[in-house]
Amino acid sequence: MKLSEIALILECRMEAAHDLDITGIAGIEEAGPGHLTFVSNRKYIRHIKNTRASAIILGIDLPPVDIPSLRTPNPYLAFARALELFHEPVLPPSGIHPTAVIAGDAEIGSGASIGAYAVVERGCRIGARVTIYPHVVLYPEVCLGEDVILHAGVIVRECCILGHRVIIQNGTIVGSDGFGFAPIGDGTYHKIRQTGRVIIENDVEVGSNCTIDRAAIGETRIRRGAKLDNLVQIGHGAQVGEDSVLAAQVGLAGSTRLGRNVQAGGQAGFAGHQDIGDNSVIMAQSGIHGDVAAGSVLSGSPAFDGSVWRRSAALFPKLPEIQRQIRALEKELAALKAQIQSGNEK
Amino acid sequence: MKLSEIALILECRMEAAHDLDITGIAGIEEAGPGHLTFVSNRKYIRHIKNTRASAIILGIDLPPVDIPSLRTPNPYLAFARALELFHEPVLPPSGIHPTAVIAGDAEIGSGASIGAYAVVERGCRIGARVTIYPHVVLYPEVCLGEDVILHAGVIVRECCILGHRVIIQNGTIVGSDGFGFAPIGDGTYHKIRQTGRVIIENDVEVGSNCTIDRAAIGETRIRRGAKLDNLVQIGHGAQVGEDSVLAAQVGLAGSTRLGRNVQAGGQAGFAGHQDIGDNSVIMAQSGIHGDVAAGSVLSGSPAFDGSVWRRSAALFPKLPEIQRQIRALEKELAALKAQIQSGNEK
Amino acid sequence: MKLSEIALILECRMEAAHDLDITGIAGIEEAGPGHLTFVSNRKYIRHIKNTRASAIILGIDLPPVDIPSLRTPNPYLAFARALELFHEPVLPPSGIHPTAVIAGDAEIGSGASIGAYAVVERGCRIGARVTIYPHVVLYPEVCLGEDVILHAGVIVRECCILGHRVIIQNGTIVGSDGFGFAPIGDGTYHKIRQTGRVIIENDVEVGSNCTIDRAAIGETRIRRGAKLDNLVQIGHGAQVGEDSVLAAQVGLAGSTRLGRNVQAGGQAGFAGHQDIGDNSVIMAQSGIHGDVAAGSVLSGSPAFDGSVWRRSAALFPKLPEIQRQIRALEKELAALKAQIQSGNEK
Repeated sequence: MKLSEIALILECRMEAAHDLDITGIAGIEEAGPGHLTFVSNRKYIRHIKNTRASAIILGIDLPPVDIPSLRTPNPYLAFARALELFHEPVLPPSGIHPTAVIAGDAEIGSGASIGAYAVVERGCRIGARVTIYPHVVLYPEVCLGEDVILHAGVIVRECCILGHRVIIQNGTIVGSDGFGFAPIGDGTYHKIRQTGRVIIENDVEVGSNCTIDRAAIGETRIRRGAKLDNLVQIGHGAQVGEDSVLAAQVGLAGSTRLGRNVQAGGQAGFAGHQDIGDNSVIMAQSGIHGDVAAGSVLSGSPAFDGSVWRRSAALFPKLPEIQRQIRALEKELAALKAQIQSGNEK
Repeated sequence: MKLSEIALILECRMEAAHDLDITGIAGIEEAGPGHLTFVSNRKYIRHIKNTRASAIILGIDLPPVDIPSLRTPNPYLAFARALELFHEPVLPPSGIHPTAVIAGDAEIGSGASIGAYAVVERGCRIGARVTIYPHVVLYPEVCLGEDVILHAGVIVRECCILGHRVIIQNGTIVGSDGFGFAPIGDGTYHKIRQTGRVIIENDVEVGSNCTIDRAAIGETRIRRGAKLDNLVQIGHGAQVGEDSVLAAQVGLAGSTRLGRNVQAGGQAGFAGHQDIGDNSVIMAQSGIHGDVAAGSVLSGSPAFDGSVWRRSAALFPKLPEIQRQIRALEKELAALKAQIQSGNEK
Repeated sequence: MKLSEIALILECRMEAAHDLDITGIAGIEEAGPGHLTFVSNRKYIRHIKNTRASAIILGIDLPPVDIPSLRTPNPYLAFARALELFHEPVLPPSGIHPTAVIAGDAEIGSGASIGAYAVVERGCRIGARVTIYPHVVLYPEVCLGEDVILHAGVIVRECCILGHRVIIQNGTIVGSDGFGFAPIGDGTYHKIRQTGRVIIENDVEVGSNCTIDRAAIGETRIRRGAKLDNLVQIGHGAQVGEDSVLAAQVGLAGSTRLGRNVQAGGQAGFAGHQDIGDNSVIMAQSGIHGDVAAGSVLSGSPAFDGSVWRRSAALFPKLPEIQRQIRALEKELAALKAQIQSGNEK
């Protein structure tokens, strides 16, 4: 494909002495002749001068470079679209595999693909063009919108609802019982029947081996456009706001509500029953134990303002020095007092 | 159902001007007319005055409210029982699905339900009224007690034993190989054959996508009544005591033993070979690197006494201020010394 | 088996008055008559005097003991080999189970075992003597080396490659989509097609319910001999070096590269795009946010030098005392200044 054609499709400005052929997309360190590469993370700018790529996608704000470049305000998005020009996804065949066990009353939309050994229980409704990979299990009364993709090993429990274009990677569990046990008083517990469900709205993507629990009553809800990485835990009755992004191994305890566009770094944890305001940023490994105002940037466990945290964290390795400074002060002060005392006595 | 009937069944004291019909149970913010709601977490008391519920389950210690109430010393337990009055669980059909692959010598108890594509290997013994959902795999020689429930995707490895009424949510692995590798001396490792097993005692519930490793020798044991949330890791040879409660994403390294009624908050981690005393409370995200005395309340990583930790954690954001105070002291002291020096020289 | 025979096979020096029969291997606290036990972790030395074992494997550096002993420089390795003398692994039958769904063009090596309901898609190549347990799914074009073991519930996504003797415990996902979304500018995201793959080299073992994401472009790579415990997350484009060991619940964000022989403790987290030098040791629950020099020992979140961290961590519980000391200094200094002032005024 000609670089000029790619520029046209990606809506980039081409900076090149003459046109050239592009045969593939590659990372800046791995690229070779014929490859188009990109830089969006500033950490990689230093690699531009050594790349063997034939051309590069770059931000419009970066200085001129020695190789042909495609300039755009959003190089990461342009890279994403360039990938689509050169790579077709591996798709399963459409139709229902003969080994799939599908309840007689299940409704299957047109163009759906259901893989080997999938199980679709009674009362399920599956939208048009849904892709169900092998070994997916839908418990009774599950409802899937159109163009949903459920990868192998996904399990959706009874009565849960997934909107249109939801993508769930492998091994993720939607709608398992929430963790609810009432202490009886003798040290043992009474299981609280989890009667609610999980609702996942349109355009959500969930990673692999996540767990999203059904609510005791009412619903657990992942709102439109939210993205969850792998091994994320969503407790019963929790809510994740629109376009929020949760990195891997994040955990939300029960009934916690994340607003819109919240970003949570890897392994961050949220106690139960908290309200997290829109556009908050919760740094990796933070621990949230209270409500969070919209637009907050928090870090630490327990978390507090991220800019203060950075300074506190920088001082933490200096605690031994701080202790020495205090001891020195105590000593000097005692010496000074003794000196004054002896001066007075003279 | 009449509120008075519910009061009778739940053994609550009814405070209401007259009887009324209840049609369902709902959370205090979601409830509408006809609903019975509840408050057990004090954070929600402020919602009582605005709830649209027709009646409420409340602790006997709370002041009078404007709507009919059911009073009980344990409102959370009463709520749990109320749910059971209005919601029947979705149960799979009994009997063995024709696609289940069951070894000829496996013993299946009466009233068992075995779902589609379940695999039960040779030598397994399954108790009466066990529910095995689709896509469960039992390796050889597994033994399940009566009334066990294994949700879709659960895998139980060879020779593991589960007691009566054990419930395991989806995708959890019981008995995978422990993480044992002996360094050979050249930088590589020799895998240690994991010859032990996992024993899960009566009335244990385990969440989704957990991993409970078999022991190298002997056993990994989850004792009677313990409750594990999702994505919990139990290392080889570890033990969880009776009625202990582990929140989501907790990790126990190998050979660590938790006593009875231990509570571990989300994402807490335990190093290997530690003994954790009965009734200990380990706060969320804590890191345990030593033995813990019975009844301890620990927090932080590394963890120490929780009440001290609260004060230290409150001072952590003040480290920049502490540093400023020390610098001010140093300056003032130097000035004072200079002043005294110059006074002496006069 | 005679103790002298075991000594011969394990290449240990026997210290015993006369030979004896050994019937099994057991832990030092559980062992009884006839058992051979071992001590490699120094924490258990104190148990030697009370063990009921008939003989013990011990380091050559430990003092004489009252029971027959097998002495070796590497008691943990000798224990591992002793286990193999007494315990045969439970192996599945060889051959292909009639319910396995295998694409017509898949190549299956000689002596392979493929279990019930396994799915092997088109274009897969499976080496000799591979063991595929029930309910494993291989997406199209997967390539497995010889003597690979995939436990029940493992899923390997399209085009991924596993070397020889790779072992993957249950429920682990290899090659799910990396977590890549380009912000469009209106608050929503554009999914970045994940066109790369995962390569797992020879002699790697991966635990249960791990997630190893495919790269957006290029590859995610787990190098020769690396060992990953359960619930480990490997982001897209990340690399784990040869013989590196990652404890349970560790998370690597995208494009982070671990060198050789890196050790990461449980729940440690690595931000994206970091380079971690050979032989580094990252303690449990640490958070790595920058490049790490080879041979570093780091702890804390954010992590810094482990020996400094130990001192800082020991002072953290003393922050309230440090604050009191500063207040006392301020008070004393003020009193001293007042005293001098009043002295000067006299």
